[in-house]
Amino acid sequence: ILTFTGAGLPDAAFWWKERATCCKVPARRFGSQRQLVVVEPSSTAGIAVLKLKNPPVNSFSLEFLTELVINLEKLENDKTFRGIIITSDCPKAFSAGIDLREICGKDPAYYTEYWKVLQDLWLRLYLSNLVLISAINGPCAAGGCLIPLTSDYRILADNPKCLIGLNETRLGISVPFWFKDSLVNIIGHHASEHALQLGLLFPPAEALQVGIVDKVAPKDQVQSTALSVMAQWLAIPDHARQLTKNMIRKPTADLLVKRRDTDIQNFVSFISRDSIQKSLQMYLAKLKQNKD
Amino acid sequence: ILTFTGAGLPDAAFWWKERATCCKVPARRFGSQRQLVVVEPSSTAGIAVLKLKNPPVNSFSLEFLTELVINLEKLENDKTFRGIIITSDCPKAFSAGIDLREICGKDPAYYTEYWKVLQDLWLRLYLSNLVLISAINGPCAAGGCLIPLTSDYRILADNPKCLIGLNETRLGISVPFWFKDSLVNIIGHHASEHALQLGLLFPPAEALQVGIVDKVAPKDQVQSTALSVMAQWLAIPDHARQLTKNMIRKPTADLLVKRRDTDIQNFVSFISRDSIQKSLQMYLAKLKQNKD
Amino acid sequence: ILTFTGAGLPDAAFWWKERATCCKVPARRFGSQRQLVVVEPSSTAGIAVLKLKNPPVNSFSLEFLTELVINLEKLENDKTFRGIIITSDCPKAFSAGIDLREICGKDPAYYTEYWKVLQDLWLRLYLSNLVLISAINGPCAAGGCLIPLTSDYRILADNPKCLIGLNETRLGISVPFWFKDSLVNIIGHHASEHALQLGLLFPPAEALQVGIVDKVAPKDQVQSTALSVMAQWLAIPDHARQLTKNMIRKPTADLLVKRRDTDIQNFVSFISRDSIQKSLQMYLAKLKQNKD
Repeated sequence: ILTFTGAGLPDAAFWWKERATCCKVPARRFGSQRQLVVVEPSSTAGIAVLKLKNPPVNSFSLEFLTELVINLEKLENDKTFRGIIITSDCPKAFSAGIDLREICGKDPAYYTEYWKVLQDLWLRLYLSNLVLISAINGPCAAGGCLIPLTSDYRILADNPKCLIGLNETRLGISVPFWFKDSLVNIIGHHASEHALQLGLLFPPAEALQVGIVDKVAPKDQVQSTALSVMAQWLAIPDHARQLTKNMIRKPTADLLVKRRDTDIQNFVSFISRDSIQKSLQMYLAKLKQNKD
Repeated sequence: ILTFTGAGLPDAAFWWKERATCCKVPARRFGSQRQLVVVEPSSTAGIAVLKLKNPPVNSFSLEFLTELVINLEKLENDKTFRGIIITSDCPKAFSAGIDLREICGKDPAYYTEYWKVLQDLWLRLYLSNLVLISAINGPCAAGGCLIPLTSDYRILADNPKCLIGLNETRLGISVPFWFKDSLVNIIGHHASEHALQLGLLFPPAEALQVGIVDKVAPKDQVQSTALSVMAQWLAIPDHARQLTKNMIRKPTADLLVKRRDTDIQNFVSFISRDSIQKSLQMYLAKLKQNKD
Repeated sequence: ILTFTGAGLPDAAFWWKERATCCKVPARRFGSQRQLVVVEPSSTAGIAVLKLKNPPVNSFSLEFLTELVINLEKLENDKTFRGIIITSDCPKAFSAGIDLREICGKDPAYYTEYWKVLQDLWLRLYLSNLVLISAINGPCAAGGCLIPLTSDYRILADNPKCLIGLNETRLGISVPFWFKDSLVNIIGHHASEHALQLGLLFPPAEALQVGIVDKVAPKDQVQSTALSVMAQWLAIPDHARQLTKNMIRKPTADLLVKRRDTDIQNFVSFISRDSIQKSLQMYLAKLKQNKD
């Protein structure tokens, strides 16, 4: 198996390709510093497996988000790909979402850039022409749900530690409206109201029941399950499926497209408040203390 | 029992009425060449049973659609009727939807007329003041779902051959947005996204679970079940029920009313594409070959 | 236990406060003639229990609605409160909704005032910053559902007499669109269409299944269940939860805010019709006859 070697960002060398020549694992691999793209060797259908690797918990640093948007754009424009399975390469989590250090102690210009790339990621995923399947092989909280919420299908590891949910209110913050919109589209209005107000984190069985995931599988079979689900989706002609997906999702995406600037302004002014900054600092200090 | 005799279309003679005088089956019957309207004899409530009879599979030819819209309009304006049960008179299917020969090898003016009457049918049914119940006594695929999707209640025959669903993507095409809207109103956003992208055809038990039908009944009891359900609906004063139905459905219908012309243009330009025409021709040739 | 003593309406004396000094039931109580507000003694969290007491069935007279809006506004503005449990002090019902005598035989100005305060109540509750839990300890029909439909959580007494639902069509009238909107937000479009057209009243098990209530509890445990559910909701920081609730609910509330005047005009012209007035008079006469 090829060992991943990081590459600079975001120049031409960033997109690193190599055909593996080892006969047993004939996988092409793409990569960037914080994501690893493996092309399924057994598949003739053009399935990419995108592995998030921003240890320890795939939190969203600005660099991570930027790389991810670029990697997704490359996959979108590469005609050899029809579907992406997104999973975690970090044993501790699928994703913990927003890196609090990115929204604490920086200036408004930085917050603006950060929020813009987060919007970019949501839009890129939500309107992707590719089939997106989230293979959620670890805990997935708050902003970490962005990828599952914008996928076509979600598979969660059947492990009591693998909680999934938008627990923002427990941290004293609110989700952006586009997170809410994509959640409502998946689990409905009432369940979303309940889950978002209470900041619920669902264990696998409950996650399946409320509908925030479509399937639960043993942890070591999450990726293989994703591959068989993907095969069903790729049995459908791309063009008709893409038209259909776009017709259903565009009205929701348009809400963000129309209000991007206002949404950025709202976020920047909210996060710049003294009270919010103080509470984030205290929270980060406590996290650091727990580590020491 | 009166034998149905076809009538010309669409002049005054088209609408043929006769009170049956046979004491045992005192049914009034209406008709046209491709539909049969039977008035339930036992009912004092004004229930019409509309039987689709465009063999072999009630596919939507332009004539069939035109007759159906006219028949429905007559029933709507005839004060003796309060509810319609729509079912199939063809043993092989409830309806196979759009007749592909109508959208293949014709000119844009023809496609325009065809799509307009399909929109007329959807609007006529979706905003009907009558109680509409679909007694789905055979397979019901793609455009064939138009009638169930616009009904107030759907009963499906409990037979493994009686699949129901919008499998358009499997044929390389996309459903119009108003089909999608009425499906979302019935089974919700997420299930619709899944069902439409994958072109799923549901067997009875799954159809009931996903909610695309409201009830499953043995094939020979579908119509009698429809009659008892209808009795519950007709226990409600018409005026209040109609106001309520209209209040709930009008926003969805308005979306099509506002965008009818654009929707026609989109369809005509899509279906006129060489690539689409070629793939339809190949599909039709294959169907013909299978028959020979 | 303090005996409730009514107070005039709506002057300053209307809002009557007293700290109970009895050591065993150290409850503060607020009140008005038709509602009783008890502050939970055991709670440090600021939970008010608002008991509806307009015997025999808490029907919505103009005075009752006016008092309720004022009481809710006071609670909303009193920083000691974070949540309200709304329940009935009348053994016979949670609420029967609109008092038909208020919409029969009055003049348009009266109907206008009545409808306006009903809208006020819905808006006040639907956008409340407080956590609202309905402890539905008796039958709850038609307009009586206004309070549950606008609450964050609904608990129904597990008693076959405790039916809940919007049975307006059975009385020959239609629900206003904002009732419909809040019902759709809770149980979805299709179930709402079905329930509203048929005017369904659900017994507890069915109410839970369709989702019009969130929990069923033995009748004598409805309030204690509400208290433990409230504790879960109050574990969430108010500000983040309020922002989240407002984000989800504002689009629905805005529909009414924008159309208040038209909605009043529609109601007044509908209810002023001779045919409607006659049918209401007959219905009221029958009710009176049954009592005599």
